[in-house]
Amino acid sequence: MDDKLIDPFIYATANVLETMAFTVAEGGTPYIKKDRFARGDVSAILGLTGDMSGTLSVSFSDGSILSIVSAMLGENIHEMNDEIRDAVGEIANMISGVARQRLGEIGVSLKAAIPTVIMGRNHTIAHITDQPVVAVTFQTNNGDFTIELCFEA
Amino acid sequence: MDDKLIDPFIYATANVLETMAFTVAEGGTPYIKKDRFARGDVSAILGLTGDMSGTLSVSFSDGSILSIVSAMLGENIHEMNDEIRDAVGEIANMISGVARQRLGEIGVSLKAAIPTVIMGRNHTIAHITDQPVVAVTFQTNNGDFTIELCFEA
Repeated sequence: MDDKLIDPFIYATANVLETMAFTVAEGGTPYIKKDRFARGDVSAILGLTGDMSGTLSVSFSDGSILSIVSAMLGENIHEMNDEIRDAVGEIANMISGVARQRLGEIGVSLKAAIPTVIMGRNHTIAHITDQPVVAVTFQTNNGDFTIELCFEA
Repeated sequence: MDDKLIDPFIYATANVLETMAFTVAEGGTPYIKKDRFARGDVSAILGLTGDMSGTLSVSFSDGSILSIVSAMLGENIHEMNDEIRDAVGEIANMISGVARQRLGEIGVSLKAAIPTVIMGRNHTIAHITDQPVVAVTFQTNNGDFTIELCFEA
């Protein structure tokens, strides 16, 4: 997958975490997934179509998302509740919005579907495509989280 | 949500189950979700954009999907494996394809994103929208499953 498709999502993820949750999230080197699925305790899935068809997913552990949403809301959230659910959907929406704006600037037009949030301890996520799935792990002071991207022409 | 948006997905779901898995799936009356989330053991999520932005999800219990995929493949599948994962993604892709073709005939154009399959016992799925989420439960000889649809203008 072309770096020019991935970089806007890496920028957007760090930007959204910083502006919404005052959390520094450092993106690692993108890698092609070898195993077929990601694991997480809460994930957002967001479909993308337009010049290409694709999907973005963002997966957090309980620990990392509780810290991030606590910072977003300015109060300590101790359990996986509807506030976490909505916040994870909003984070995915905002990452998609910032990334799609930057992609638009280089002539790639994408529309976003309605985000879906999955909760369930240690669930797995697999994007059903024969194209490569690219993952980027972000480190924060409160644990890691991962985004995954796939596109078909 | 307008029936004309939902009916093609109900038709498509029954049609795909019958032609792919020789399984009669009888759709119930569509209802607006009151609780915020669906539960399942395996689910497919498929983003839709175009004339509207939306998302389709299909959620199965272990028991129902093992029977359906066993019928699809003509062999007894006893465990939740990659064959189940791929089959659930393919079922979602085909439901979307048949439904979008029928929607096209009435002038509604939708594109589909890449499907994502979630596995994890009793996970929850929530579509993050302020619009109604419509659900339809399908009965089969081997248990029920549910589709959910949401759209934003």
